[in-house]
This record gives sequence, structure tokens and C-alpha cells, in this order.
Amino acid sequence: MSDKPVLRIGLIGTGFMGKAHVFGFATAQKVFDLPYRLELHTVADVTEKAAARAARDLGFARHSTDWRELVATPEIDVIDITAPNALHKEMALAAIAAGKHVYCEKPLAPRAAEAREMADAAAAKAVKTQVGFNYLCNPMLRLAREMIAAGELGEIRGYRGLHAEDYMADAAGPWTFRHDPAGGGALADIGSHALATAEFLLGPISEVMGDCITMIGERPDGKGGSRAVTVDDVGRAFLRFENGAQGSVEGNWIATGRKMQHDFEVYGTKGALAFSQERFNELHFYSTADAPGRRGFRRIEAAPDHPPYGRFCVAPGHQIGFNDLKAIEVEGYVRAIAGEIPEPFGFAAGLRIQRLVETIQRSSAEGRWIRISA
Amino acid sequence: MSDKPVLRIGLIGTGFMGKAHVFGFATAQKVFDLPYRLELHTVADVTEKAAARAARDLGFARHSTDWRELVATPEIDVIDITAPNALHKEMALAAIAAGKHVYCEKPLAPRAAEAREMADAAAAKAVKTQVGFNYLCNPMLRLAREMIAAGELGEIRGYRGLHAEDYMADAAGPWTFRHDPAGGGALADIGSHALATAEFLLGPISEVMGDCITMIGERPDGKGGSRAVTVDDVGRAFLRFENGAQGSVEGNWIATGRKMQHDFEVYGTKGALAFSQERFNELHFYSTADAPGRRGFRRIEAAPDHPPYGRFCVAPGHQIGFNDLKAIEVEGYVRAIAGEIPEPFGFAAGLRIQRLVETIQRSSAEGRWIRISA
Amino acid sequence: MSDKPVLRIGLIGTGFMGKAHVFGFATAQKVFDLPYRLELHTVADVTEKAAARAARDLGFARHSTDWRELVATPEIDVIDITAPNALHKEMALAAIAAGKHVYCEKPLAPRAAEAREMADAAAAKAVKTQVGFNYLCNPMLRLAREMIAAGELGEIRGYRGLHAEDYMADAAGPWTFRHDPAGGGALADIGSHALATAEFLLGPISEVMGDCITMIGERPDGKGGSRAVTVDDVGRAFLRFENGAQGSVEGNWIATGRKMQHDFEVYGTKGALAFSQERFNELHFYSTADAPGRRGFRRIEAAPDHPPYGRFCVAPGHQIGFNDLKAIEVEGYVRAIAGEIPEPFGFAAGLRIQRLVETIQRSSAEGRWIRISA
Amino acid sequence: MSDKPVLRIGLIGTGFMGKAHVFGFATAQKVFDLPYRLELHTVADVTEKAAARAARDLGFARHSTDWRELVATPEIDVIDITAPNALHKEMALAAIAAGKHVYCEKPLAPRAAEAREMADAAAAKAVKTQVGFNYLCNPMLRLAREMIAAGELGEIRGYRGLHAEDYMADAAGPWTFRHDPAGGGALADIGSHALATAEFLLGPISEVMGDCITMIGERPDGKGGSRAVTVDDVGRAFLRFENGAQGSVEGNWIATGRKMQHDFEVYGTKGALAFSQERFNELHFYSTADAPGRRGFRRIEAAPDHPPYGRFCVAPGHQIGFNDLKAIEVEGYVRAIAGEIPEPFGFAAGLRIQRLVETIQRSSAEGRWIRISA
Repeated sequence: MSDKPVLRIGLIGTGFMGKAHVFGFATAQKVFDLPYRLELHTVADVTEKAAARAARDLGFARHSTDWRELVATPEIDVIDITAPNALHKEMALAAIAAGKHVYCEKPLAPRAAEAREMADAAAAKAVKTQVGFNYLCNPMLRLAREMIAAGELGEIRGYRGLHAEDYMADAAGPWTFRHDPAGGGALADIGSHALATAEFLLGPISEVMGDCITMIGERPDGKGGSRAVTVDDVGRAFLRFENGAQGSVEGNWIATGRKMQHDFEVYGTKGALAFSQERFNELHFYSTADAPGRRGFRRIEAAPDHPPYGRFCVAPGHQIGFNDLKAIEVEGYVRAIAGEIPEPFGFAAGLRIQRLVETIQRSSAEGRWIRISA
Repeated sequence: MSDKPVLRIGLIGTGFMGKAHVFGFATAQKVFDLPYRLELHTVADVTEKAAARAARDLGFARHSTDWRELVATPEIDVIDITAPNALHKEMALAAIAAGKHVYCEKPLAPRAAEAREMADAAAAKAVKTQVGFNYLCNPMLRLAREMIAAGELGEIRGYRGLHAEDYMADAAGPWTFRHDPAGGGALADIGSHALATAEFLLGPISEVMGDCITMIGERPDGKGGSRAVTVDDVGRAFLRFENGAQGSVEGNWIATGRKMQHDFEVYGTKGALAFSQERFNELHFYSTADAPGRRGFRRIEAAPDHPPYGRFCVAPGHQIGFNDLKAIEVEGYVRAIAGEIPEPFGFAAGLRIQRLVETIQRSSAEGRWIRISA
Repeated sequence: MSDKPVLRIGLIGTGFMGKAHVFGFATAQKVFDLPYRLELHTVADVTEKAAARAARDLGFARHSTDWRELVATPEIDVIDITAPNALHKEMALAAIAAGKHVYCEKPLAPRAAEAREMADAAAAKAVKTQVGFNYLCNPMLRLAREMIAAGELGEIRGYRGLHAEDYMADAAGPWTFRHDPAGGGALADIGSHALATAEFLLGPISEVMGDCITMIGERPDGKGGSRAVTVDDVGRAFLRFENGAQGSVEGNWIATGRKMQHDFEVYGTKGALAFSQERFNELHFYSTADAPGRRGFRRIEAAPDHPPYGRFCVAPGHQIGFNDLKAIEVEGYVRAIAGEIPEPFGFAAGLRIQRLVETIQRSSAEGRWIRISA
Repeated sequence: MSDKPVLRIGLIGTGFMGKAHVFGFATAQKVFDLPYRLELHTVADVTEKAAARAARDLGFARHSTDWRELVATPEIDVIDITAPNALHKEMALAAIAAGKHVYCEKPLAPRAAEAREMADAAAAKAVKTQVGFNYLCNPMLRLAREMIAAGELGEIRGYRGLHAEDYMADAAGPWTFRHDPAGGGALADIGSHALATAEFLLGPISEVMGDCITMIGERPDGKGGSRAVTVDDVGRAFLRFENGAQGSVEGNWIATGRKMQHDFEVYGTKGALAFSQERFNELHFYSTADAPGRRGFRRIEAAPDHPPYGRFCVAPGHQIGFNDLKAIEVEGYVRAIAGEIPEPFGFAAGLRIQRLVETIQRSSAEGRWIRISA
């Protein structure tokens, strides 16, 4: 069907993110001229029934109830992990040991220490890795980064970032793994996206002062009782960046009414950008180079001018969707495997986010600023 | 891979829309639990090279340089036509004659007379047809229709519809098939979408007064000379609906700055809706049932509450993209083929739009109101 | 208190608009360096009590129950008419005959024929007149007009104008003078504003095709019965402008949810403008001169760059209010009286709007295009 | 002219704010049925020429070059201070000692210690005072406060406040009194507004963690040299409220492109509010009480439903302007003087803001949380 080399995928986990990854593979293959032909080789799930069904529905040729089988299969090139967070490390280390490339959903691991083991192992084996921070794949965020890098905003002075939703706003919602002190909380769950975007745009954060608050102290345990919650419902931080800019960031999962407030503003000496994930096919740009009396934030709509948007829609304004972001993520990862580009967001980057999250949590607990160690 | 019956697709045309249809098939199959397994059987293009390449890139098992071969292949169930408009009729009639279901990109045909032949043939053979008016597949438009049907706006009184873009705003842009007096012009090309949305929401239009204007009277012919343009750059109409409502509609392809202004407002006795395709994951709803002092247009964001959004994203606010609309279109068509639902937008509907377009053009030329004959 | 010459005002009518005019006089005097000191000389209302109270509350030195007394008072320079529309003509003609300048609320008169008498009389006596179309006084509309005149949008091709509100949306609302066949209806009442804005920006309309619809055919008469309504609830028109542009306009007082949708879009060969009175301290500007990939409608916020905004607020973004528009109207009128500038919107302009309204109504009744006679 | 008692104003300072106060007096008197008739008694400025001109232009009967003369004039009831911040204390203390009511522009004084002296003196003499935090006078902010107080949002959990502008974004802008370490900086200058709004809506702040940053370390001194700047260009804080809510606030005068970003979001258990001063005639309200699938932030436009909007405009959507906020401030103050209502924002409130500002600055300097002492 193609003379391209084949890249064989072994998928572990068939929940929402597993499905999203499969969409990503399929769309990426149709939309981009990838260096490989992607083959959905084997899918693993815990029961024979679930695995068989996933294979059929998602288009995998084989299935298994044992993820170790995938790791042990020589033909499989990439192990794609969408299993629960607590299992990421064991799976990834085994896959890396077997010389496989590893694609892992975020967060890389509940704790930075585990993430570091994973990143170190990947580096030692020189396999290619990817962590799923898909908001960064938005063409408008790439545009923002390019504009900043090209100096269109002048020198960057300030940043305000946010990721607020309301999926935990209902106090009657039950205790879940997201409330587990190991890796849980709004800052880790979605504030991590806001941190990733901040560094994607402005470069490394150098120092933080955190504020992590538990507003809903207990939740139903699903057995008629309740269970204490100690993780943050809101986690925010003051930031210093290595480039001299300052700013703030917030993760908030009790922001009633907000569904996808992954927003930012960047202020430079010559211009500014404003973005909201609520309307993620737009980027608002203010330039002091515009004529007096004609200045204002201009609403740039995603268009073929903003790669890789044109791969999805040949005309401006048609808009890509959330699932398309995953396809862009897959493209970048596959190109990195082919050696065409550096890893867009590998395990080292995933570790970096975990460290930022934990440093902010620690800063909050200790009530003091903490430098991000190199 | 599945125990579902197979539906085999023969695709004619491999340009942008051909590709978009293939995305639609692929995504629909992954996202929905379709009554069939879709098989990309054969693709036809004019040259061996183009056809072979399309087969490989798009995932068809076979290819051909003769579309008639597809029509003659007994295993093929659906002929999917994304070839130039001028060929739609011939291809569709041949496919219908062969007892195939036919999926045809919009417009159904350059002229209503031809569209009628096609619709009549499909009806006579009782095959299932679909015309590609994909904006109607937006979950927020379905929501709007349901709200209107359920009386949430009260009795509907007024409508204001629009589809404006600027892809023909540059007078230096060359003469294209879209400028052909047979089937060309802004009203036919994009005003047709605005008409489709109007009837989708409010039901049949009963009378029109048209205003079709050519603003750019000649365009480069691509050979160093110029060619006269007689089709409309702006086509608008006053409308009467059978339900007693009145309104207006506009198609405009020289609307500088606008990329996807497929907008509408609906006014009822108890509420109103406002929508813009520029932000098509939102619907704005005003209700007089809200408390005094608390009324206002509320911005409803697309969510799993609005089927089939939840098939694409499990959480609200994540947003679907333009290509996802095509997958929803495919789903509807496939279900219609299976007899589960009526054709969502079959050839009769496509004919209806062509007739509205031509009636508006005629009304404009004659400078008088014209009733839409039954 | 000032060495400026004094301009003495005689006000007829003390309702909402009377009050608004007095605010306008007061604010204009404080905000602008007017060529006159304005003196509130006498106010007239129908009863002694109402007139006395108005004098006290509004700051007039004298009051009267007979408007003719004001016209007969030699010291009064300006007769300001905010009485019911049906009385405008008689009052204005008397004032003009007495050599007074006349400031008259819109509409100038219920019928164009009467408006013409008034305009002719004013011209014959060479008094200065003003009709209250205050939306035109918005600094952002002045900016729009200047940008168009300066060619910032290139050649103007298209226009879409609107004035929609919902104050007549409730069918249980009683029959009022606004429903009187003489001068009533949505087109006359608020569509007239949309027409005024259209000509303010693009110059004279040359031809119209109207569509005036009565949706609520009877209303309570306030005595337990009902009264037929024959005026339009929605009045719209296709437009041709003398400059070659085409467009449309709508007046709508049953637009549920809309409170002040006085909106327009202007499309030129090089740029576009979009405006909504709902956010009237903003003008949105699209320019094809912006770099590719950086184009978009930019939201220009009212600022001292946009005279006379700076007279009200020394800093950008603070925003002027509706009543401030009236003060700007007063400034222009007073300067015209002083001979510094032409009349901003005199009786001839008011007549022009009445003629446009009636021509659209006639066009609708006759179902055909009508040229606006010179 | 009126049988109301007279309230005589003595104004010190005739710059922008002096003028704004006079507008406020004039408009308040026309718009509201005040308990007093306001009389502009005497105005003071430093030179005879300036004072005489101000008297004439602003409508004061008398003028003086010595503010002490106003304080010594028995008939004057209210001393209105719009002189430079550094003089507020001396003037206010003298006026209070003379038993006058005192209206003072913000900030009350450069330092909280001075503000405390002023507040204590006013309390001891039981005169009525007012500090000019006019954004709080917005009918939409009053609505927000009422909705919160009435429980329409449920229990309040979170807050995000902001006041960002760009008037100091240009590093070439000269050193001014706003850069004076005594009372200067973005947090004091405009962050103070954000703090006032936060407490206006949610009640007392109980604890803060500050972050005050100087981004532009020196500015031209106007004499060809430069002068060090030590005050903050951005001042932000984490907040705890006595009601249990948490949040953040930011003052920023180098926010390129922003002219009036005085914004907030409030999150409760049952609803949320979002507001931007950029569109200050709107309040966005999300309610979990809306039906599933119909929820969304609704854009409530200012209307007569939201007092005292109706005093300015009889219809919704017409919009008040910045200067109208000052008139509302005057109304409140005059009613407080008449004993009808408590002081809306007296010296004690002004002191409170100063203390919050200084506590945040201290917290930033010490890098630790600080409780707001009672």
C-alpha cells in the first residue's frame, strides 16, 4: 500500500485517551506525509473481551491481555501507554529496556522522582519519547512562539497563564485517582498544561512562589462514606523566567462555568498576545507598530498561513478540533523517531513539568520562593 | 475485524473534497458505532499516476482511471462523487441506474433542471443519496433546530442568515469555474449554505425577493487577457417562510476580512438564538423566561449534552473541527442506507437548494417577488 | 461668568428627550470650549405644574405653558423641540418664521412632505437647524467615516447595516403613537438610524428595494379592546449607493434579546470595518495591508486619538456613554450656529432620512425597486 | 430655583480630576433627586489666573489662590480635594478640623500611616468623607455584589482580579510622581482599584502573599539624565478572604495593549460571574440552575433593571460612560452627608485599601504571607 518504512504501534490502554491516540495515528497518517506508514500492531487491555473488542473497534491486528507481551514482541517499534498514571513507570521502563520508543500520556508519572527514572532510562537507551501535552500542538500556539522568538513583541516582560475548568466543582463528586496525594490535584492535572504553555512560549521558569489550596476537604468515597481530600483544587504560582520576564499561572478545577479556560496573555515591549483555548483557532495580537489611532488587538484566525493548519483545511477560518491536535502531536513524534526533528515533548520535558508542579507544591507548603534547580 | 456487514465505497475524484470524504469515512468509523464496516474499495482519478497515488495515500485497495468501471463493479455499494460539478449528473445517473447509493458533493448540479433529473432518478430507484452540506451537521445547529422545534423560542418570527467570505475579494484573482454562468456565483457557491441552514432551522421558504450583484465585472483569464464575469459576487434575498416567519439571507464572497461568516439569528416570541460559524462550537441563547435583570444571550459551549459531540470529546469545551462535521455527515448517510433514519440531506434536499438559488437569481433579474413552487 | 456671547435656549417638551437635551447642553458646555455660553432661558410644558417643575429641575430661569410664548420671546435664540412628533412641524415653522434656530428631535416629522416644508422654510430663512440623530456623533463612527474617506479600506463595495431592538417584541404591549400609520413603524423609528449611518459612512443611497412586514397585527388599545397595527415591525431594504457600492439595511423592533443592535459592516477592496452599538466604544478594522498570517479584525478602543473622545476622558479605554453622544451633537450644532462648521445634521438631512424611509415603504408596497430622486 | 437645602462645595485643584468632579456634581444634580441642591461655591488653584479661569469654566462663583481660605469659609460645607496626593493629608486634616465634610481623590494619602491620621480625624469629628474609587459605582458591579450577597452564586470559593493598563509600558516615558517610592507603583496606582473591587464583592481580605516587581529600573528624569525607579511595575498577590474564599489580584501598568483591563471572575458553588471594565456595561453570569445543555455565561447588558442605570438611560443597552460613574459616586456621597445611607467609601475604606497595598508590598519584600490585622 506504500513503500514507506513501517512503524508498528503497540497500545496499552483502551480508554478515552487510547481511542484519542488511535484517532491521532489515523488522522496524522491521512493528513501528513509521514516518514513512516503507521501500523496498529497489537492492543493490550486487562480482559480478553475488552482487548478483543478494542482490537476490532480501533483497527489493531492483534490483541493481548498482557502488556508485557507487547514489550516482548520484536516487531513492535513504539509502545504507547495510556494506562493509569500509576503504571506508567513500570511499563515505560520495560519498554525502554526492550529498546522501544515510548509514547506516554501525561502526566509522565505521579512523582518527579519516578519521571526522572523514566527520562534517564530513555536518554541512556537513546529511544525517542513523547508525552501527551497536546495543547502545545495548536498552530496558533506555534504561531505565538514564533512571533515571540522573532521579536514581534519586542522584549518579553510579562505573562499571565491559566487553565481553569469546573469538572471538580461539585462537592458531591466522588473521590477519584485524581485526588490521590501521589500525583493528584488541579495543579498537576491541568495547571501542568498552563506551565507547559508558559515554558513553550517564554522558555524556562527560574523561580516560583506557589499557592495550593484545598477547597473541598472531603468527597464521597463511593461506599456511602467520605474520604479526605488533601490535594489542591486551585494551584497557582508567581513566576520568574530565565529571560527576565515575570508572571503568574493558575490551575483550577473548581472554576464554575469554565470548561476550557486555558488562556494566556504575553506582554512585550512592542506588542502583546492574548489567547483562550475556548476559541483556540484564534490568536489576538497587539502591535505598537500599528499606526496611532489604529491600534488594537487583532483577531488572527487560524489559516493555511499557520502550519500545519493547512494540512487539515485548505481555507482559513474552517477550524481544527481538539482531536486534530493529537494528530499534530503524532506527526511531531513520528518525525522525531525518523530523526527529522528533535523530540517535540519527550520524557525530559515531561519530567520538567513534574518538577515544576512539585516545586510549586513545595513552595506553597513552605510559604517561600524556590528556585528551579537546573 | 468486525462482524458487521460491509459497505464498499467507490470514490470518484481525489482533490480536497475527496480527501475530506475519506477523512469522514475514517473518523466516522472510529467515532460512531456504525451499522456497517466501511471499506474503501476503489478510487478513480483521470491519470494512472494520480489514481495509484490516491489509492495508496487514502487507503483504497484498488484504483482506476475510468469512473465507469466503479459504477460497473457489483461489489461497490456507494458511489461517492467529488468530481467537478459539471460531471455530477452523468456520474450520478449512471450510478443510480446501476442501483448504487450516491454520495455527491455540493452543489448537486449546476442547474436545478439537472438536479431534478438526478433526484427523480434516485427516487425511482429508491437508492439512498446524500449531498454534502456539512455545516448542518454541527451539533450546535442540531441543538438550535431542536430548541426551535421544542418551542423554547416560542413562535418564530424572524431570521437573519449569512454566509460571507473573502476568497473572491481580490479583483486580480483569475476567472474560475466558480464564475461560470452555469451554476456559478456567490449565492450558489456559499449563499446555498445560508439557505440550507435557514430551512434546516425554520422549515420551507415560501417566497423570495432576490438581489444578485456582480461587483467585479471581469477577471484575468490566465492567458494574459481578461474574461467577463456575469455571476453574482453578492446574492441576497428577502424571505418568507411557510411557518409565517420573515427574514433575509446573504451570500457574499467579496466580504473582505471574513473567512467563515456563516452566521444567523433567529427571533421568536420567547427567545432568540445567535450563531457564528467563526466560533461554531458555541450557540448563543436568549430566553425571556430568565428572571428580569438576569437576561442576556448565554454562550452555550458544545458539550456531550449536544449529540454527537460526545462521540468526539468526552468533556465540554474541547471543540470539534471542520473535518469532524464531515464524519457526522457520513454517519447520518450510513444510517440512512441502513434504513435507521431518513436521508439527512438527500438529492431531493439538494435539488431544493438549487431551486431556491435559481428562484432568487430569477427574482433578482426580474425585480419582483417569486413564490417557491411546491 | 464668561465673556463669550450668550446663546439662549427655549425648550419645548420635558420628557426623556427634553431631559437628555438639557444634559447635552450642560455637558457640552463643560467639555467643549464652545463659541457661546449656553443659557437655559425658558422651558414650556402643557401644565403650569409640569413647566414649573421642569424649570426648577432642569435649571431654566423661566417657564411657560404656551410654546408660542417662547417663539415670541426676542431674546431666545434657539427653539429646541422635544414635543410629540405630530407637533414638530407647527412649532418649527413658527420658530423659523420668528427667525430662530431650531433643534428638533428625530423624526423631523411624521411624513416627508411635512419635513420638506420645514426644511424649505429653514433654508429660506437661513436659520441653523439640527435633527437629533445622535448615534452619528460617536467618535468611532467619525473615525470610520474618516478611514473610508481617506481610502484606508480602498474602494467601498459592500455594506450591511442594522438597527434591531426588542421593545415591541411583546404582542401584549399596547398600541402607541409609534404604531400610528403616520410616521410609525420600526423602519421609521429605528431603521432611520441605520439609514442615517449608512449615508453618513458611504454617501447617498441611490436606489432601494424595500420589505416592510407587520408581524403583530393588533395590539391592546388600553381600553380593554384591541387596535389594528398596519405599520412594519421589520423594515428592510436592499441598497445601491451613488458611489457604486451595494448593501442592505434592516430596522427591527421585535428582535427578541437585542437592545441596541445598531451594527454595520463595510467592505472595501483593501479593508473592512465592523461595528456594533452594543459595544460602541470599539471599532473593528481589517486591513489587507497587514502582513500575511498577521491579518485579522483589530479591536480599536476609543481613545484621545479619536476626537472628541479626549474631551470626555484623558485616557483610552475609559469609554463615553450614550448621554455624551448628545453633548457632541450639541457641540456640532452650536458651532454651526456660530458659522464655524456646516450644519452636522440639519433639517435637509432629516428630510433626506424621511424620504428614504418613505421610499422604502413605497417600494415594499409596490414590490419593486425605486430610485431615490435627487 | 429649588426649595432643597443647599450644599456648598469648595474645590481644591482644577486638573483632570477636578474637572471630573465638577461633571459629577452637575450630572448627579440633573440625574438624581438629591437631598441637597449643590452649589459650586469657591475653587482654589495656585495662581490667580488659573483659579479665575477655573471658576469661569467650571461654574464656581468665587475663586482663590489659597486653599486655606476655603477651609476658613463658614458657608462651605464640603471641601473637595483633587490636589496632588502629597498634599491630601494637610488639606483634609485642616478641613476636618474646621468641621467640613471632605471628598478626596484616591489615593487617600501616599502612606497608610497618613491615611490613618485622616480617617481617625474624620471619625473623631464625625464628618462625612468620600474617596474616589469610582469603578465601584458601576451598576453592574452593584448587581454583582447583590447577586453574591443574595446567594445566586452559592458559596463563594474563588476570585481572580486584575487591573492592567499600558500607560507606563514605554521605558522612554519620564519619571513622574507615580514613581515616587512614597505611594507610587502600579499596585498602589491601579492595583488598588482591583483590591477595592475584590473587597466590594467578597468582603474583607484576611491574608496576602505579594509579588511586586520593577521591570523598568530607570526612567528619563526630564533633564537629560535618568532616575532610578524602585516602585513596582507589576504588583500581584495571592489572597485569602475572611469568608473562606481564595484568589489572586494583579495591578500592572506595563500591560502592552491593555487600556482598561479591570477584570474579575468570581466562582461560587452554584454560579460564576465574569466582568471586564473594557465592556463595563455588561456582566456575564453562569448559573448551574440553568437546564443541562442550556448552560453558559450569559451576557447581561446594563438596563433600568440595574439601578441607578435607569437614571441615565430609560432603555436597556444604551450604556453609561466613565464620567457617569463619577455622578453616581457624588450621589452616594451626598446621600451619606444627608444621613440617608452610610458612607459608600469613606476615609476608613480608603485607609483599608492603603493598608492592603502596603501589606502586599511588605509581603513581597519579605517573601512571606502576612495577615491583614484588624
